[in-house]
Amino acid sequence: MSELSAIHNTRVETIARAVLAVETSGEGFFEITRDVARFLEKIRARDGVVLLFLRHTSASLVIQENADPDVQTDLVTALKSIAPADAGWVHDVEGPDDMPAHVKAMVNGVSLHVPVAAGKMGLGTWQGIYVAEHRARPHRRELALQFLGSCGE
Amino acid sequence: MSELSAIHNTRVETIARAVLAVETSGEGFFEITRDVARFLEKIRARDGVVLLFLRHTSASLVIQENADPDVQTDLVTALKSIAPADAGWVHDVEGPDDMPAHVKAMVNGVSLHVPVAAGKMGLGTWQGIYVAEHRARPHRRELALQFLGSCGE
Amino acid sequence: MSELSAIHNTRVETIARAVLAVETSGEGFFEITRDVARFLEKIRARDGVVLLFLRHTSASLVIQENADPDVQTDLVTALKSIAPADAGWVHDVEGPDDMPAHVKAMVNGVSLHVPVAAGKMGLGTWQGIYVAEHRARPHRRELALQFLGSCGE
Repeated sequence: MSELSAIHNTRVETIARAVLAVETSGEGFFEITRDVARFLEKIRARDGVVLLFLRHTSASLVIQENADPDVQTDLVTALKSIAPADAGWVHDVEGPDDMPAHVKAMVNGVSLHVPVAAGKMGLGTWQGIYVAEHRARPHRRELALQFLGSCGE
Repeated sequence: MSELSAIHNTRVETIARAVLAVETSGEGFFEITRDVARFLEKIRARDGVVLLFLRHTSASLVIQENADPDVQTDLVTALKSIAPADAGWVHDVEGPDDMPAHVKAMVNGVSLHVPVAAGKMGLGTWQGIYVAEHRARPHRRELALQFLGSCGE
Repeated sequence: MSELSAIHNTRVETIARAVLAVETSGEGFFEITRDVARFLEKIRARDGVVLLFLRHTSASLVIQENADPDVQTDLVTALKSIAPADAGWVHDVEGPDDMPAHVKAMVNGVSLHVPVAAGKMGLGTWQGIYVAEHRARPHRRELALQFLGSCGE
């Protein structure tokens, strides 16, 4: 069973873009929900959609639970079992954590979108946006943020 | 070898949005292709793109084969082997099906888009759009639907 | 720690679309970065976003490392361990490589976007765009390309 709400219409007027740089401290999840919200405030976004794109091949973008930090611990464990360090990878010139990082990034992906209404992202109650760092050491990661929709006032 | 077709241009005029609520009956795939098509009819969509966003962390959005229901059975099995219930998850306060559900949702993702031409989604012959429910019990799941493009007539 | 760059604004004016057909030679990764770049040149894209959608259920879209071809070998291996051919799949009428292909396509996904500035995609240094073919035999795969943004001059 499914149910469709009333329709809401806006004009598409503008694309605003910026680059968000995130310093990770090694393998794990780094929340960027507030950074994206800050971008939307800064451009005075009204209605539209925010597009995120991560410019890397050994980190990824994930929308996941923001309440219990144990979830993130288990997500890291799950990714390790999908791509173990000792699986005999052919590509090993950049260290034992590099090829598993590529696999994890492929499975999670590097592009996603979140709807925006009245300047606020339409995330669910328990959803946070994360850069998932898959390399063992700290990295500086760059994201392209784009808002398509209406801005102002 | 690759080949690029002729180009087609349209004006971007509007964003229409609505919320689609889907009642799942527990773990499995729930097709929403017709619901999305109904949204496009209701707003008299012409050319553009429809964006889907699922507001949950233990269900996901999947575009997959709509012909043989055995495929969906096997997809559920595949997800179980990626994230088994008995893997010794740290996060277990919400039941043994909760943490596996988060892993499955991360791997599949919660946002996707489908192109629209002359009011119809440009899905392949065998593609259907599904909410994949990863929890054991029934849930009410909410999706944000957005159409960007031209409407009318 | 995170850092937001200066903001850049453009008008959204148009959606240009085309179909890209790619001939794969069987299981593996087929780069389409130049094909997408050629589409953007042809429409004289300026600023916006390019959306890619693959119209199939046994192939997928991946953005991954374009330098060492060993990475692609290992990605194929990783996908095989996620979805082995001999896992006793219920759906086996289309051959032993078919159901694993559906699983791999689900995990990778069939839709993604890349930001565009001054006509160029904002990919990271090591990022290439690939059609991942998951079937053993060659296939002709179709992608819908859409550019949203400003064109001209």
